[in-house]
Amino acid sequence: MLVSAGYLREIAEKALVAQEVAPSNARLQADLLIEAELRGLPSHGVQRLPRLIARLRAGLAHPVAGGKARRTGSGAFTIDGERGLGPVVMMRAIERLAAVAPEQGIALASIRNANHIGMLAYYVEAAVERGLIGIVMTTSEALVHPYGGTQAMLGTNPIAIGIPTGAEPFVLDIATSRVSMGKIHHHALTGTPIPDDWAVDADGHRTTDPEAAQTGAIAPFGDAKGYGLGLGVELLVASLAGSAFAPEVGGTLDAINVANKGDIVILIDPAAGERGSSGLAAYLDRLRASRAADPSRPVAVPGDGMRARRSRALADGIDLPDPLHEEIRALSEG
Amino acid sequence: MLVSAGYLREIAEKALVAQEVAPSNARLQADLLIEAELRGLPSHGVQRLPRLIARLRAGLAHPVAGGKARRTGSGAFTIDGERGLGPVVMMRAIERLAAVAPEQGIALASIRNANHIGMLAYYVEAAVERGLIGIVMTTSEALVHPYGGTQAMLGTNPIAIGIPTGAEPFVLDIATSRVSMGKIHHHALTGTPIPDDWAVDADGHRTTDPEAAQTGAIAPFGDAKGYGLGLGVELLVASLAGSAFAPEVGGTLDAINVANKGDIVILIDPAAGERGSSGLAAYLDRLRASRAADPSRPVAVPGDGMRARRSRALADGIDLPDPLHEEIRALSEG
Repeated sequence: MLVSAGYLREIAEKALVAQEVAPSNARLQADLLIEAELRGLPSHGVQRLPRLIARLRAGLAHPVAGGKARRTGSGAFTIDGERGLGPVVMMRAIERLAAVAPEQGIALASIRNANHIGMLAYYVEAAVERGLIGIVMTTSEALVHPYGGTQAMLGTNPIAIGIPTGAEPFVLDIATSRVSMGKIHHHALTGTPIPDDWAVDADGHRTTDPEAAQTGAIAPFGDAKGYGLGLGVELLVASLAGSAFAPEVGGTLDAINVANKGDIVILIDPAAGERGSSGLAAYLDRLRASRAADPSRPVAVPGDGMRARRSRALADGIDLPDPLHEEIRALSEG
Repeated sequence: MLVSAGYLREIAEKALVAQEVAPSNARLQADLLIEAELRGLPSHGVQRLPRLIARLRAGLAHPVAGGKARRTGSGAFTIDGERGLGPVVMMRAIERLAAVAPEQGIALASIRNANHIGMLAYYVEAAVERGLIGIVMTTSEALVHPYGGTQAMLGTNPIAIGIPTGAEPFVLDIATSRVSMGKIHHHALTGTPIPDDWAVDADGHRTTDPEAAQTGAIAPFGDAKGYGLGLGVELLVASLAGSAFAPEVGGTLDAINVANKGDIVILIDPAAGERGSSGLAAYLDRLRASRAADPSRPVAVPGDGMRARRSRALADGIDLPDPLHEEIRALSEG
């Protein structure tokens, strides 16, 4: 059914408060999930809520914790997330970094022991709203095989970059896997085959069967280069956050394990550079106006599609599967 | 002909000194070019030298300048390269950052008005040798089309990441284009067609003709994601370094224009994190030992191939085209 963002936010928030989540934390966590829905990213939307509730009930997610920071340099912090909600720990880290970024120019926080942070775009947009450049990376369970390999050894290891442009911000949010496991699940649910370059099965053979892919491994995006980038994220995050490597990571997709992946966030003050946002919007407009391969599909800039989907969903509502709506409504009643 | 790295370094250095380049600068610039040759990257090797000499003669490259730094934050500098040699300005920036990184945790330098910095791996390896994580990005002339576009609007915008592991370092060095223009030139020289997903011709049509591709545009690597990443590099560098956007960039491939691209380098002290290099080498060894798609080609880690090629070339010599050898030998005699 179609529901409004406001209504969905309200029942999601209530479901969290019913688990003793601090009201401000519930508001933030619900906002993150609804923003993912609005952008057409249901895999990071309210379908995550029932599992998060289960994690709160199991003591794997803490309803109040915001993370304990240790300053390891004038411009660097490491944060023990104390099993807090991902967006709660992350947004506190961003506040902390935003306070020092103007003086430092660049600042870094590395987070371990926090729950799933969801859609990364949310955080780099928060940086941009503060007039700052944001770079966020996070790790996950082993889902991706190395280039030339066939076993799931890396996380989907997304990276997001947000840059103020003076107009609509540049917002890039990409997993370093060819597709998300969410998309493969969707193919499995609808019984649609997947392209043969998305994934391998448990035996390491390329497969078009989404069920077989679920027990195998997803390909990295962009072959050797994308693999290299995803591995770079894996190592940077593990080294700095002190989190686990993908084969040992648990707790972002289950309600059994403590979340032992890591996250890093870097904020840069554009004022520490020579140009700031001057001329960025004009250059992006030149890109958008440049000759398209298909005249009916103009060249886009990362962030354009998300913004368009968000506007539409705000006007038309969010299309939620009935059983999921029922489940969240029931959870909101405690 | 096969030449030794030592001999090639010597004549390259002499050719630079003959143009009044300070001996220490000549040593560094020659070392960068020879290291690219050793790694099997001739497009960034001594074939760049004659053009660089022409730039020195034309006053577009300064033989002594090392760059003038302005501190814009406790952990941030912008650097006017004063038309200095790329590696000279870059290595001074790295020394400057390396001096503050242990106290800051993270530090950033943004460079404009310096010449071509060549193979990025060189700089992140220099960071790793100092026990630091290095991230380097640079921009270039417009050579790459946007995803869904057909005009050259972006640079090849490479990104490099170096991470100490306690054993062989992780060294990623990737252009965000599908291939280098150097590779397309090589196909043109040898009259070999290129795969049809590498580039478009001047009219925006996919082409297998390397000559046509030279006047067209190269595809981004990894489709929309790689395009987004390359555009992120374009914007980050331009915003921070205050350098030009790709369509206005000149001076890395010619001997006519001042080099107005930009470079950024970020150093991070692993000691500002929780894990440092602990466990990184063991995880990478697990990757290398994981099941390969083709048993005769084991899974590799970025940096492995470069190191193997370098060892072989140190033992066997560097295969240099005779005319290029002749040209450099002549230049070395002033």
